[in-house]
Amino acid sequence: MKRIEGPYGVLMTPFDGDSVDIRAFAEQVRKLNNTAIRGYVTNGSTSEFIQLSLEEQMNLSRIAAMEKSPDKKLVVSACTGNLADTIRICEHAEIIGADAVLVCPPYYFKYTAKEREEYFMDVADLSPVPVILYNIPFFTQELELDVIFRLLEHKNIIGIKDSSANMKRLEHMIEKTKDSDVSILTGTDDILLPALVGGCVGSFTAFGAIFPNEVAALYKAVEEGDLKKAKEIQFKFMPLLRIADSFSFPRGYKYIMSQAWGIEFNDKEIK
Amino acid sequence: MKRIEGPYGVLMTPFDGDSVDIRAFAEQVRKLNNTAIRGYVTNGSTSEFIQLSLEEQMNLSRIAAMEKSPDKKLVVSACTGNLADTIRICEHAEIIGADAVLVCPPYYFKYTAKEREEYFMDVADLSPVPVILYNIPFFTQELELDVIFRLLEHKNIIGIKDSSANMKRLEHMIEKTKDSDVSILTGTDDILLPALVGGCVGSFTAFGAIFPNEVAALYKAVEEGDLKKAKEIQFKFMPLLRIADSFSFPRGYKYIMSQAWGIEFNDKEIK
Amino acid sequence: MKRIEGPYGVLMTPFDGDSVDIRAFAEQVRKLNNTAIRGYVTNGSTSEFIQLSLEEQMNLSRIAAMEKSPDKKLVVSACTGNLADTIRICEHAEIIGADAVLVCPPYYFKYTAKEREEYFMDVADLSPVPVILYNIPFFTQELELDVIFRLLEHKNIIGIKDSSANMKRLEHMIEKTKDSDVSILTGTDDILLPALVGGCVGSFTAFGAIFPNEVAALYKAVEEGDLKKAKEIQFKFMPLLRIADSFSFPRGYKYIMSQAWGIEFNDKEIK
Amino acid sequence: MKRIEGPYGVLMTPFDGDSVDIRAFAEQVRKLNNTAIRGYVTNGSTSEFIQLSLEEQMNLSRIAAMEKSPDKKLVVSACTGNLADTIRICEHAEIIGADAVLVCPPYYFKYTAKEREEYFMDVADLSPVPVILYNIPFFTQELELDVIFRLLEHKNIIGIKDSSANMKRLEHMIEKTKDSDVSILTGTDDILLPALVGGCVGSFTAFGAIFPNEVAALYKAVEEGDLKKAKEIQFKFMPLLRIADSFSFPRGYKYIMSQAWGIEFNDKEIK
Repeated sequence: MKRIEGPYGVLMTPFDGDSVDIRAFAEQVRKLNNTAIRGYVTNGSTSEFIQLSLEEQMNLSRIAAMEKSPDKKLVVSACTGNLADTIRICEHAEIIGADAVLVCPPYYFKYTAKEREEYFMDVADLSPVPVILYNIPFFTQELELDVIFRLLEHKNIIGIKDSSANMKRLEHMIEKTKDSDVSILTGTDDILLPALVGGCVGSFTAFGAIFPNEVAALYKAVEEGDLKKAKEIQFKFMPLLRIADSFSFPRGYKYIMSQAWGIEFNDKEIK
Repeated sequence: MKRIEGPYGVLMTPFDGDSVDIRAFAEQVRKLNNTAIRGYVTNGSTSEFIQLSLEEQMNLSRIAAMEKSPDKKLVVSACTGNLADTIRICEHAEIIGADAVLVCPPYYFKYTAKEREEYFMDVADLSPVPVILYNIPFFTQELELDVIFRLLEHKNIIGIKDSSANMKRLEHMIEKTKDSDVSILTGTDDILLPALVGGCVGSFTAFGAIFPNEVAALYKAVEEGDLKKAKEIQFKFMPLLRIADSFSFPRGYKYIMSQAWGIEFNDKEIK
Repeated sequence: MKRIEGPYGVLMTPFDGDSVDIRAFAEQVRKLNNTAIRGYVTNGSTSEFIQLSLEEQMNLSRIAAMEKSPDKKLVVSACTGNLADTIRICEHAEIIGADAVLVCPPYYFKYTAKEREEYFMDVADLSPVPVILYNIPFFTQELELDVIFRLLEHKNIIGIKDSSANMKRLEHMIEKTKDSDVSILTGTDDILLPALVGGCVGSFTAFGAIFPNEVAALYKAVEEGDLKKAKEIQFKFMPLLRIADSFSFPRGYKYIMSQAWGIEFNDKEIK
Repeated sequence: MKRIEGPYGVLMTPFDGDSVDIRAFAEQVRKLNNTAIRGYVTNGSTSEFIQLSLEEQMNLSRIAAMEKSPDKKLVVSACTGNLADTIRICEHAEIIGADAVLVCPPYYFKYTAKEREEYFMDVADLSPVPVILYNIPFFTQELELDVIFRLLEHKNIIGIKDSSANMKRLEHMIEKTKDSDVSILTGTDDILLPALVGGCVGSFTAFGAIFPNEVAALYKAVEEGDLKKAKEIQFKFMPLLRIADSFSFPRGYKYIMSQAWGIEFNDKEIK
């Protein structure tokens, strides 16, 4: 399989009351088909997976798989609290033809570094599709660098999405894997330019879905060595990202999505 | 409904491979029926709810409701990542005749104090059975004291289980609610004696299920003013609790359960 | 030397502009001489040692040593960022005839558990006066239980003041050392009753200085088995302690001191 | 005064037993005089200021001021636990002709965001030399972005050194101040390349003192648009930085200094 690289958009989940607005979700995918991004991530943090049952999550991934154009890749997030549910999503991801799964450390309980490593080794052993690690210390326990280095040597682990914004960690991952073909990806729109220049090969972010062509243009500018232009795009993002951060995550991103696309992306409502 | 007080046991979840060992679980309830504890808590942290689907959790609560003797109360934990799932468990708890639900703050995402308060207000408004707050800062965000004080005034919130072991917080809750009939409960076996003397009216703990008669004897000693005897029991627990803490939570408690009861309480295994 | 036990008051530091108000400080000691507390602690957290130079700290301890009545003990805090300064305070404590030093883990840098243990072993080896450990996780790194257990076996370490309010930790320290003569002390006024019943033998607290006779009365009530009276006193403290916590530490305690004693205890002011 | 920019080296503190090895320290400055770095920082975290008295710190800054060649700038760290000591260092910095002071948030006590802001406003109002903010969340409380933005508008605050390695925070500071002449500086050798491309104008780091010419070469490569070469240098640093991190901070840096320079840089020893 070809390496995961370039800009991906993390799909958002529009709600109609307390259930997913399937129609608006499918429309989101079709709109993105006509943009320069490389692929989609379903059921990530920005997608509010924690609000969704496993069945709802699998349904959304299935819709994304059906609606996506053939040139886009699909990465399915498997962010659950236990191994059984994670593997269930991995197996479903294979059925719908997803290119990879994105797996965060298990949450709620606290685990030792060794237990986290074993969890990912088990996921990698059991998943029928390639695994991308997902480091997101703001929401669950951080993956240690030495654990990551060992995990990235597993033949079924093809990369890591790091959403820590910690460029030190990213740079160590980049340098340490420079002779392999694993993908070091950032999950932070606020650092696209420095991360790409530092050596990240791609990104899974909200702005990848909201402003796909602008994000792709930033990539192109970096590729062509036009750092001035890349910085212009990055700088244009910054005030918007501060607006996004002024809401409780991920409402700010949904708000910007609604403004930018001129459509309603509602939050879940329980009556 | 009569106030929740006295010692409760948090039921453990035995596994047979990757599924729950229903038979061993039911046997656990029947054994505890013949002890001095006041009631059971299903699907708490010690019960490893994070390893279970909502359906498995509801099934376990249903079995506990069927197997329990009429003089024992049943508290069903509704520890989920979102309001919809929490309410689903609350509604099921009513159907099976549970006495209360125990609700922890939502996990994974970080919420503001205000959002956490709104979450619990919504749960209290929507739950058909009385709600007990569950503070467990080791696993999810801590409930602030002022938020707790306001929540405890809601007519459908009848108490709080606090597993922080922070006696300062407990003592403020106790003093602040001294003229109401809410139940301030500890979730920490290591502090039963000081918590009871300080004013807690009950406990939801693992040792309530493992050593029900000893825990009840400690309560009785405190009630009768025999602090020497209460301390003897508390002190006998301490080395065992250090053994429990030397494992990853909650494996140590399962290990002690297996040793104390002479039966196997296996962990979940994914092949 | 006789074991440290009973209620101690942590002395507060009144300022006159940017320097210590020596006169008001000495007056504080003389007033407390006529109360039922057992002794004084200088330069603790409540004393705002972080606002004082080593020389100012040693001067305050010297004044306390001179002004105290012979029946009161003196504990000098040696809370510094490095071993050399800590030992300097320990040596001065011997010169002025202090009964013990109270030593917190070094701050600013992060240390491993092993480094913290070595630090305290060095302090205990080098200090000419007996050492009391000071656990205060809110301000510096927490001392692990196993480290504490090993340190408490050093012949020059005679106890620990724990200000975590974590009754679980306290109860393990109490049970683990029940056959030795080390002193397990709480630093938290909010938990005096449960801590004493749980087995603490003393306390170093702000209310020990502000309300010395009331704190001593709570001790006496516990000793005489009059838990109802002890609880009454504890409950009377709680609303005041919530006021104290509504200020930035330790301003609330100074405010209550000023109100209770009818004198001015000013904060440090830099013009 | 000319803007602070380019690579600075944070000077290390060699010890001879329990006192500073003045001779080795002065020699360090003289060696660095013949390198391409722009200036020196004394008494930073890497300099182990927490091991030094205020007098020792001022003495080291004085020596650096005397030994430095006229083309190098001098930044004096004023990292203390209170305003009075910080201002004392600022006033001394003026006397010895330092170009700026570097001030970290006060440590030990916890402060509110508002209190931290007031602290820095007071420092900026009172310091006779320009102030650079120092964000170092690993050791003391983090400065919030909105607080930083307001502080950077004070006419006596000329920049910020951020040692969080959080590129998101850095990028927001860079974009927000793009039309002013404040200096956004990184304190993290591991991210020099991405930070410079992202818009940082300088760095205060340990490798600036250990490998001054290599760090300066990385700057030059970025300036000339030779990102390939810049990356080569950055990548050569990474394994060394992992070695540095395998020690307790800052011992690893001292070890690498000793190896790279062929001289002894001993730690402080208390006999």
